[in-house]
Amino acid sequence: MGNVAEAQRAVSYMSYADFAGMTAAEARSHFREGKYIGHTAGIAPGMLQGNVVILPAEYALDFARYCQRNPQPCPLIGVSDTGDAMMRTLGDDIDIRTDVPAYRIYENGELVDEVADIRHMWRDDFVAFAIGCSFTFEDALIADGIRLRHIDEDRTVGMFITNIETEKAGPFSGGTVVSMRPLTVENAIRASAICARFPHAHGQPVHMGDPAAIGIKDINAPDWGDKTDFRDGEIPVFWACGVTPQNAVRSAKPSICITHAPGRMLVTDVPAWATDSKKPNSSN
Amino acid sequence: MGNVAEAQRAVSYMSYADFAGMTAAEARSHFREGKYIGHTAGIAPGMLQGNVVILPAEYALDFARYCQRNPQPCPLIGVSDTGDAMMRTLGDDIDIRTDVPAYRIYENGELVDEVADIRHMWRDDFVAFAIGCSFTFEDALIADGIRLRHIDEDRTVGMFITNIETEKAGPFSGGTVVSMRPLTVENAIRASAICARFPHAHGQPVHMGDPAAIGIKDINAPDWGDKTDFRDGEIPVFWACGVTPQNAVRSAKPSICITHAPGRMLVTDVPAWATDSKKPNSSN
Repeated sequence: MGNVAEAQRAVSYMSYADFAGMTAAEARSHFREGKYIGHTAGIAPGMLQGNVVILPAEYALDFARYCQRNPQPCPLIGVSDTGDAMMRTLGDDIDIRTDVPAYRIYENGELVDEVADIRHMWRDDFVAFAIGCSFTFEDALIADGIRLRHIDEDRTVGMFITNIETEKAGPFSGGTVVSMRPLTVENAIRASAICARFPHAHGQPVHMGDPAAIGIKDINAPDWGDKTDFRDGEIPVFWACGVTPQNAVRSAKPSICITHAPGRMLVTDVPAWATDSKKPNSSN
Repeated sequence: MGNVAEAQRAVSYMSYADFAGMTAAEARSHFREGKYIGHTAGIAPGMLQGNVVILPAEYALDFARYCQRNPQPCPLIGVSDTGDAMMRTLGDDIDIRTDVPAYRIYENGELVDEVADIRHMWRDDFVAFAIGCSFTFEDALIADGIRLRHIDEDRTVGMFITNIETEKAGPFSGGTVVSMRPLTVENAIRASAICARFPHAHGQPVHMGDPAAIGIKDINAPDWGDKTDFRDGEIPVFWACGVTPQNAVRSAKPSICITHAPGRMLVTDVPAWATDSKKPNSSN
């Protein structure tokens, strides 16, 4: 069990380009075999992707409450039965122990490891939560002709802890984590309208303009992900981010917590734009 | 402790008309004092109202999962802390033990009583769930010029158990309960578009037209509420209904469950049309 960088050197048999044209189920089968531990942006386009948080059942009710109370950063799209590793409402054969490219392990709130597989760690009292992801609205923005620099430059979007406090639930609390994309004012307005259609994927932005207004000291020093350059006329636009629970886990200090590794999301069999009642959109 | 009809004769000092112009907090203060046990449609217009389900903590995680998996009938708008009777995310002073006009008590899945107050029954392990309500989208339809017959005739909307199975979670399962409103085809189309804007209040209809297609044998014999007459050119339009959990409780048979009485909802301090992150809309 090595860290992801090491594993990537050792066992990454597939490159990102190999996933072009694959269905979500096909892509997951390769993740399951340990053949790819990279990011999932653009894989199985049009399908809902999710952040992952796995906790012992003793924390699960409080965490469910945390998500309900903070739907913009934490829109719940799926919750497993206790001890059941299959995400049955998100696809026919999704094993949360193997089907995410890479995982982060937290013990008592501290990040202790990154791994490609958690079969050896699974417990009968684990509950897996899937939370909507920005990849969904990014697809919609791109489809509408709005270019996103971090994608054009093949970087991970920059993420920042803010002073926008989340609504506490049990031990879970802390500042909202946001992702930031530079846009022209015109595109920021268009993006706000487009993203409002995706409440299960963080919805409209939480802020635009002055980073200091939401407690961000240096827009060039993200807490996660990469720095993004600005061009003339662009402003920073901030969206609530599914990494928020990872920040809450730092303060809650559960004995054990497993999440996806940033950018390595759960790719589901559910259409990202679905709005009917049978889809795992907590808003419909 | 009598049933509601008896209590209504004995202690209902206020009539519906007395609530005109009152804020939600003012209205609740009268419910709290036991002065009104009638329906809440049209009280504190513009404020979010909710169905209520109160369960012991041992059932709460499964019930939270049930709501997440069935967001159209069960859009969660608030969850109390375990043992805490205050619905802190829905208002400054909402005591779930007293602030709903009338409650139904279920023991082992059987309806055993209707009461105006549950202070004497409250337990340290109770968790209260609030679920979005059709009054929100009805206000929007009326504001857009669509008349609703059950409101014009001062009746309770008709509700039916369907064969649209909900997604099971632990002991909770069963058919989706729907509410039915007769509309012209033109208004049914307009209503679909309008209601899609209120995912936290059941969203767009789940069906229109043939009742038999969703397992309803007799459109004139609702399982809850009143029969509604049809006029020429009208079709039945069906929305997922917050009474669905009461149907699920029948099969789950929890030792104890307390709900609102039909039409007697929790009136919150949250604007019904709110879409920003600080509002208890699980979709934002």
